[in-house]
Amino acid sequence: MPEIKETCDQGLLIVISGPSGAGKGTLCSALQRKMPNLRYSISATTRPPRKGEIDGVNYYFFSKEEFLKKVEAGEFLEWAEVYGNYYGTLKSEVGKLLKQGADVLLEIDIQGAMQIKKKFPQAVFIFIVPPSLEELRKRIIKRGTDSPEVIEKRLRCAADELSFIDEYDYVVVNDELEKALDKLVAIITAEKCRSRRVRLF
Amino acid sequence: MPEIKETCDQGLLIVISGPSGAGKGTLCSALQRKMPNLRYSISATTRPPRKGEIDGVNYYFFSKEEFLKKVEAGEFLEWAEVYGNYYGTLKSEVGKLLKQGADVLLEIDIQGAMQIKKKFPQAVFIFIVPPSLEELRKRIIKRGTDSPEVIEKRLRCAADELSFIDEYDYVVVNDELEKALDKLVAIITAEKCRSRRVRLF
Repeated sequence: MPEIKETCDQGLLIVISGPSGAGKGTLCSALQRKMPNLRYSISATTRPPRKGEIDGVNYYFFSKEEFLKKVEAGEFLEWAEVYGNYYGTLKSEVGKLLKQGADVLLEIDIQGAMQIKKKFPQAVFIFIVPPSLEELRKRIIKRGTDSPEVIEKRLRCAADELSFIDEYDYVVVNDELEKALDKLVAIITAEKCRSRRVRLF
Repeated sequence: MPEIKETCDQGLLIVISGPSGAGKGTLCSALQRKMPNLRYSISATTRPPRKGEIDGVNYYFFSKEEFLKKVEAGEFLEWAEVYGNYYGTLKSEVGKLLKQGADVLLEIDIQGAMQIKKKFPQAVFIFIVPPSLEELRKRIIKRGTDSPEVIEKRLRCAADELSFIDEYDYVVVNDELEKALDKLVAIITAEKCRSRRVRLF
């Protein structure tokens, strides 16, 4: 009788999503420091780089023309227009990492997550929510990257977006960073033990 | 807009099961030390107490007559005959704890787990497997509580029992106690974040 050995055919796709300003970005950066084997899928976008952002590291920055050409060629796993800019995830980027057996982290908005759910339902969908809408307002203002009009638009959207909770596998309330981070690590660890992913022998 | 607050109506029922000798007992004891809020559901049995076992602490020890009377009265969530003895879980025991909001740990054999799955599918089912059947043999012999005939019977059963893996939500290979324990803690933490269990507001 051979040894009992857990094997997984390929890596896990972890989709972290939630209302804008819930703290997805901060959480994902902290998660990567805590789980260094986790690979970040770099998104593509047409929005201008923010201060300090580097092409190919934070995002692939495309012109609208380049982006739409790739959409037509079916090169995106998901894409969306958000506040006038395009954002998307290249199939090639995610597929390459998963086939290597790496676990891949995707930080995307809700529209994008719903597209992934249709095309790749075996991914793990995690919804990050802020502890309150008042706290969400404070965080968006503090970030200082949005105009007052955009802030109001984001807040109106966030209230609606909370209704998407049932589309996700997990919900993490981002009240304290460390607590929320521990929950994310636990979710990923647990998902790797799911019987449908584990083969014995 | 009120605060966003996670609430759960009741506690989580965690069913830990697997072949005899996989190390369920040791793991569950260690898990309770690590998660002291976890409540152990005490099983009922007709087998004689092992050295040091106390009635109402390790098990409820019943005579066969008492046990079968409770079976007829529908007082068990699950029960089974294993190697000539009856084992069972009293509904009253589990229900009381869950209603208090406590998370309840059940360590039971596979037959019992399958009965629970029918009656209480919202429980979390975790399958503990030994790293190899050779290691399983060593562990059962080391425990020193079974006759050679019972040991051989247990080993023949264990090979068959591994086929039940797909009936469980999670699989934990018990190769190193600490690693297996971390996985159990992660699974419980993650399950408490599952969107179907969390209510916002």
